[in-house]
Amino acid sequence: MCPHPIRQVIESCDSAISAKDFDSLMQHYAEDAALVVKPGMVVKGKNNIRKAFIAIADYFQGELVVEQGEMQVIEGAGNALVIMETLLHFLDEQGDSVETTRRATYVFRQEPDGRWLCTIDNSYGTSLLDSDA
Amino acid sequence: MCPHPIRQVIESCDSAISAKDFDSLMQHYAEDAALVVKPGMVVKGKNNIRKAFIAIADYFQGELVVEQGEMQVIEGAGNALVIMETLLHFLDEQGDSVETTRRATYVFRQEPDGRWLCTIDNSYGTSLLDSDA
Repeated sequence: MCPHPIRQVIESCDSAISAKDFDSLMQHYAEDAALVVKPGMVVKGKNNIRKAFIAIADYFQGELVVEQGEMQVIEGAGNALVIMETLLHFLDEQGDSVETTRRATYVFRQEPDGRWLCTIDNSYGTSLLDSDA
Repeated sequence: MCPHPIRQVIESCDSAISAKDFDSLMQHYAEDAALVVKPGMVVKGKNNIRKAFIAIADYFQGELVVEQGEMQVIEGAGNALVIMETLLHFLDEQGDSVETTRRATYVFRQEPDGRWLCTIDNSYGTSLLDSDA
């Protein structure tokens, strides 16, 4: 079975983040897209998302490695909802190696030329509700 | 703080489901929307979604009550991702009362007239990945 074309888009984004190639990264976002930086903090628009990714890269000092696990894509009415297991490897403040798994939710929109652009990037998935408690 | 207008749309949908008013219900779905009926089973298009809701109502014999809990809405590029706690009350096969909580994920698209239409209805949220295991 062929993987969904969005899987390739997400892999390109991960490579761009690792390479700090934010120009390539931003090609996959819609102009007025939203990024959940952390629970309670959402930035909107490509310029702000770009700045947030630079800040995240600085915070992790280039030690953040992202690996994608299981993925499901549900397409409807020109949108796609992606449910994805994401493994993060990084060093904590003590310099110890940390591995954590998130279940991310991403929304994409298909353009007239067939490309998929990310409209909402929420790597926290439904765990956003935890912070409401 | 004003609740997000999508909250009202979802409440209208719940009322329509309880009243078996499927005409009203379908007004809130985009023409080619997708509904996750259960993990691994997705139906597409208003006609098929309508049929699925009728089948679900028949299955629960009118005993399904849906209550909405915490909700977060992330808007980006004309889409909205809704993360929502959903409480379901129903009778199981033995006639015992069952209560279960899900964390749902819904995708909406804003129309030029300002209305929000559901493009992807996935009441299973990120737990879709469980069935992949």
